Amino acid sequence: MSGSLVVVGTGPGKPELMTPATSAALARATDLVGYGPYLDRVPVLRVDQCRHASDNRVELDRARHALELAASGRQVAVVSGGDPGVFAMAAAVFEAVEAGDPVWRSLDIRVEPGVTAMLAAAAEVGAPLGGDFCAISLSDNLKTWATIERRLVAAAEADFVIALYNPASKARPHQIGQAFELLRTKKKQETPVLFIRAAGTAEARVISTTLGSADPSVVDMRTLVIIGASTTRQVGRWIYTPRGERSAS
Amino acid sequence: MSGSLVVVGTGPGKPELMTPATSAALARATDLVGYGPYLDRVPVLRVDQCRHASDNRVELDRARHALELAASGRQVAVVSGGDPGVFAMAAAVFEAVEAGDPVWRSLDIRVEPGVTAMLAAAAEVGAPLGGDFCAISLSDNLKTWATIERRLVAAAEADFVIALYNPASKARPHQIGQAFELLRTKKKQETPVLFIRAAGTAEARVISTTLGSADPSVVDMRTLVIIGASTTRQVGRWIYTPRGERSAS
Repeated sequence: MSGSLVVVGTGPGKPELMTPATSAALARATDLVGYGPYLDRVPVLRVDQCRHASDNRVELDRARHALELAASGRQVAVVSGGDPGVFAMAAAVFEAVEAGDPVWRSLDIRVEPGVTAMLAAAAEVGAPLGGDFCAISLSDNLKTWATIERRLVAAAEADFVIALYNPASKARPHQIGQAFELLRTKKKQETPVLFIRAAGTAEARVISTTLGSADPSVVDMRTLVIIGASTTRQVGRWIYTPRGERSAS
Repeated sequence: MSGSLVVVGTGPGKPELMTPATSAALARATDLVGYGPYLDRVPVLRVDQCRHASDNRVELDRARHALELAASGRQVAVVSGGDPGVFAMAAAVFEAVEAGDPVWRSLDIRVEPGVTAMLAAAAEVGAPLGGDFCAISLSDNLKTWATIERRLVAAAEADFVIALYNPASKARPHQIGQAFELLRTKKKQETPVLFIRAAGTAEARVISTTLGSADPSVVDMRTLVIIGASTTRQVGRWIYTPRGERSAS
């Protein structure tokens, strides 16, 4: 049997948010490759399954290792959190394919969609992504801060709801504050801002504030930040963005 | 027992892409409210469950009906496709709460996240959403075409990957062509464009083309359109967007 590689996402954390298609793909795999904490979310599905845990931030090494295993005939699952195509391992796998052994281009490679963090975060508070929106990774490991600023400005001009992934890490504690400073020059101070930590897990915690009052020091690696559009509002204990500008009937 | 309302999404279509949390919420409901074709995706889970099917484009009526049922003590599930918070029923429910009976604000209302169409569409072709991206509904039923054009221009300026929901309908066959005309003035003609029909179903079909050659006549209501960023590219038979601008190690 020839090898294969499937890139999957465990969803935001709760087992009930992992799709049955992903569970089935994990059960078929002979080898699981991923960042340790994501692999830990996968229950033991078969005793002959090898787990290859790696550190964070070595995505390309991990992708190459997975491709080598698949090329050697193994049935490999690369395990991300969330959806594997959104700021996760799928793009790293194709980067490795492009730069690597030409044989890898004929491998059986598939991607299974999953529930990405912003969807779980939005569901915790209501429907803040109810209008047009964008998703920006605030990490400048692979792109310049100038690019991130240009995208924040364009997002404000478009009046998109903004979902910020990777808003802070130990190495980058200050960028989320810089992003708020920039957005305060472009958007109203009363724009709703949501800090949603560990969305889609039993430990989910929400801080609902405004752009003018947002305290960036509460943000960490497990926080997803949502910044409203001009129409985003509170009703009862929920925050939502209406579907359009006009009232509907 | 007092009433409740949960807004769920069936995912893109295949039963294996509906989360277990959504299946459990559907099994608990006494009443399912939704657009007929989405309700048809839900297997019969209990014989005492009432189904309230409605036409498309009557979202607020449907939301009000669901809220009335919940206020009368029923356990109601409002059924969307995809993720309920992305161009689907969750925002309509909160619009109805805001405009409706103040009693509705104290109801037990929850949203369950799901796999939205663009994630399933991206997975069909590789990882086109691997960088920063935006999602725009091309429907001008509830917002002006000028707003949509402003967002397309900003998305091009930001160099976002663009996912277009609701790109065409029988009543709006020409807007996707207008969107391409506008984007051709802002982005390179060789930018990858993907038409992904019925993503996440057994009938999924992909057309991979470029902005310069994209034929809008192939687009229908079941098509999700993805327009690449400047970095989006082909490798082997896959399309992907690298995670950043710099090559990583």
